[in-house]
Amino acid sequence: MTLTVLFAAGDAAFAEYRAPLTQAFAQHDLKIDLVTEAAPEAVDYIIYSPASTLRDFTPYTRCKAVLNLWAGVEKIVGNPTLTQPLARMVDPALTRGMVEYVCGHVLRYHLGMDAHINATPGAWVQDEPPLAPERVVGILGLGELGRACASALAALGFAVEGWSSRPKSVQDVTCHHGADGFKTLLRRADILVTLLPHTPQTENILNAAAFAQMRTGTRIINPGRGALIEDEALLAALNTGQIAQATLDVFRVEPLPAEHPFWAHPNVTITPHIAATTRAKSASQVIAENITRVEAGAELLHKVDPARGY
Amino acid sequence: MTLTVLFAAGDAAFAEYRAPLTQAFAQHDLKIDLVTEAAPEAVDYIIYSPASTLRDFTPYTRCKAVLNLWAGVEKIVGNPTLTQPLARMVDPALTRGMVEYVCGHVLRYHLGMDAHINATPGAWVQDEPPLAPERVVGILGLGELGRACASALAALGFAVEGWSSRPKSVQDVTCHHGADGFKTLLRRADILVTLLPHTPQTENILNAAAFAQMRTGTRIINPGRGALIEDEALLAALNTGQIAQATLDVFRVEPLPAEHPFWAHPNVTITPHIAATTRAKSASQVIAENITRVEAGAELLHKVDPARGY
Repeated sequence: MTLTVLFAAGDAAFAEYRAPLTQAFAQHDLKIDLVTEAAPEAVDYIIYSPASTLRDFTPYTRCKAVLNLWAGVEKIVGNPTLTQPLARMVDPALTRGMVEYVCGHVLRYHLGMDAHINATPGAWVQDEPPLAPERVVGILGLGELGRACASALAALGFAVEGWSSRPKSVQDVTCHHGADGFKTLLRRADILVTLLPHTPQTENILNAAAFAQMRTGTRIINPGRGALIEDEALLAALNTGQIAQATLDVFRVEPLPAEHPFWAHPNVTITPHIAATTRAKSASQVIAENITRVEAGAELLHKVDPARGY
Repeated sequence: MTLTVLFAAGDAAFAEYRAPLTQAFAQHDLKIDLVTEAAPEAVDYIIYSPASTLRDFTPYTRCKAVLNLWAGVEKIVGNPTLTQPLARMVDPALTRGMVEYVCGHVLRYHLGMDAHINATPGAWVQDEPPLAPERVVGILGLGELGRACASALAALGFAVEGWSSRPKSVQDVTCHHGADGFKTLLRRADILVTLLPHTPQTENILNAAAFAQMRTGTRIINPGRGALIEDEALLAALNTGQIAQATLDVFRVEPLPAEHPFWAHPNVTITPHIAATTRAKSASQVIAENITRVEAGAELLHKVDPARGY
């Protein structure tokens, strides 16, 4: 039987994904009609991103699952018309990219690289940095990405501590949870990495009160979601030195407007939402695998819990 | 029996090492008279660095071993008066520092961080970098430090290839050796890390001929020895773009003079010989351990082969 899969993630993504999806479906022995337009009642699966115009899922009565093309689902999970099961994208290549970005920027701050990259000729200051075991790296969020980054940083020798709302355990990582655990992590981290999903509970989780609880001179790396940080509070904390440096990959408005004060701040590094990009080839494999599972009667992988929001 | 240990590594180092050495000797139940001056014929061991004035080892007739305070031994190994066994310093903290430095700068080049650190406000260019498995990192030298760095980079996912003069094997690392292997590695590496000892064979090993064999746009990281690279040839290769960037931690003359063209070159990053510093606490443990071994009749650890020069 041929399945109808609606690609509702925008024209640009379709140009990128058409070939790898077709190949992945063939490799999984799936007979699929991959379309960008279809009668809603004929659609078996929807591949989705907010780049599409699709907002009303009501008429997709036969649809067995909505497969999100991105890791973040905050723009779809609250949609009241969405009654179909929703899967986040958990792309091994995306996870790998995130681990590389986080390890790279943690080591950059750990080693104090910026001062060397922009050194004054003749400057020869042999500060002995602490070794990794003497440096506490805090990871806010122990989902797929947070756990992978925590493990990689622990393997590099850092003293890694993580936080999640509910108790979790990760090997070689000290795990905190709940409101008290959040305060503990803020007090302990020398470098703080934010990898939480964006939910009503995590919005502005790093605000003035949070910055005030951190060690003076904490460094922040945010490759998670822009809305986790209250921009004005971060700028204020950077200006007093409470926060020494911040590297930000995600923003409330993207591209980050040229007039946003983050750009001009000497202690802020902007990366243009590149920490973890979904790779068409590996993401297509994940989608084909998930359709194969559902067709075989198995549980959808990476299924979103609407109550939690991720 | 009390042993006499001559600390011949300069006054500054003595100030740093006196307490940790005393503590390490006590922990090893060694009775030691740690001195900076002694009748040569009364000395049992010498802790050495070229910062001392000691050049003639002939009168130290009772000395059972010379324990170098540094990893590099090129300034002592050719000394014709040295007939006592010589040990390199293999300090686990030094190795750890080197691994952090090398992983950090490899990830920096891999991720193209410099462009973000010094970004133009509003610049939003979402280049998708290759993932680590698509990036070949070459390691010249598979001694203690080269092997540790190669393994850590392989754990981060990089395609790591190493080279040593004689055949070696390192898990998850493609190992080359000899003259042909050297050429192979030069042709394959996207990022090349030099961790060879300084010997007559390795002096200027990266010269114009070597740069010409590399991929256009290769990046170089040299935390090994300054004399491994021919400075003028590197500058020429940087100016044509054959070598895209270089990060250098060691130089023929240190501190690197402010007028040296490396400082002003936009594609050269200078770090002030900080990649791997011997840490007094852990190095003192290594020294105490080695004296304990020799006193017990065991083989000196990290013994230098004068014929090889390391």
